[in-house]
Amino acid sequence: MRVLLVGNSGTVGSAVESLLLQRGHQVTGVSRTSSPALDTSDLRSVSSFFAERSSAENRYDAVVVAAGGTPFKALAELSAEDFGQALNAKALGQIAVAQAATPLLSDGGSITLISGVLSEIPVPTGTAASVANAAVEGFVRNAAGALPRGLRINAVSPTVLQESWEAYAPAFPGAVPVPASAVANAFIRSIEGIETGQVIKVW
Amino acid sequence: MRVLLVGNSGTVGSAVESLLLQRGHQVTGVSRTSSPALDTSDLRSVSSFFAERSSAENRYDAVVVAAGGTPFKALAELSAEDFGQALNAKALGQIAVAQAATPLLSDGGSITLISGVLSEIPVPTGTAASVANAAVEGFVRNAAGALPRGLRINAVSPTVLQESWEAYAPAFPGAVPVPASAVANAFIRSIEGIETGQVIKVW
Repeated sequence: MRVLLVGNSGTVGSAVESLLLQRGHQVTGVSRTSSPALDTSDLRSVSSFFAERSSAENRYDAVVVAAGGTPFKALAELSAEDFGQALNAKALGQIAVAQAATPLLSDGGSITLISGVLSEIPVPTGTAASVANAAVEGFVRNAAGALPRGLRINAVSPTVLQESWEAYAPAFPGAVPVPASAVANAFIRSIEGIETGQVIKVW
Repeated sequence: MRVLLVGNSGTVGSAVESLLLQRGHQVTGVSRTSSPALDTSDLRSVSSFFAERSSAENRYDAVVVAAGGTPFKALAELSAEDFGQALNAKALGQIAVAQAATPLLSDGGSITLISGVLSEIPVPTGTAASVANAAVEGFVRNAAGALPRGLRINAVSPTVLQESWEAYAPAFPGAVPVPASAVANAFIRSIEGIETGQVIKVW
């Protein structure tokens, strides 16, 4: 398959890219630092990236997003701006990619976004992440039935990664971290499988 | 109890106000058209309303929000601005009220927000509402454990109202509408009960 992978420079994104290549897919990887760049936290960057790709050569069988950070702070310290930033970077950015990529997808193609365990399981400094991840999952549940041409859409929801465990362990009491390679397999399940409207949990 | 009710002019809000009064509570009702006004879709309105209420006389046992509309359009017609507007009006506005009201609540007091059935059940033109409602529920699930002084927080999730059924019936195939009075009872369950971190479904 031809796969557009947004956020191929991160820990999850690079694991997804490796596994896709290993499985024989053609991957176009983009990130904030690629050329052309795509920064999902900047809606203008999303529009201009896709405006330049509207020609017939840019067709994909799958679009994957593995990008979008959120602030981690105690609830009392989270400002309206923090919540706005979390929703912009993680929810609105991914939704904008999904919407702009829809016309570029071949019939029966798929969109796979990333949410995270905090949509369902609270941790002390994770309220902004909970809000943004839940918004992504709300989008996926609804859009699945509203997409044209048999397109599918899912979200992969990882728990904290083994690769980031040292930094995040204090924020995730009792969590069992997973390797990025396990998260990459969840993306493959969405891309090569038949599921739609699902939150594929890796926890 | 002393209750601050944000959005007392809407169909749900006025039903909540009636039921609160009937049950002997003291209600301070505010809306976009009250004086002082509170427009949850405008974060500056939220900050200035609460900045003027920081004195010791303005203490509440419960803060309730029953406000926040979202655009209803087919997925292909929903722009990034539509999603941003839905999140602003329904999610960020309610979160800002919850955050600003926290210091005004008496120990053990409660916050009750409003989400809606579309966070879980998709309907054809409801993708922006799904995103915003899911974000509200993500906030409530997380904030419940992060609030100080035994404060509680819940969201009431109504399906379509009998009072709006004529306008919304085409958008909600197969739905069984509920009266606003049933939704008001769910608010009472949150305000007078002991639940926290819950989505109280009226569907």
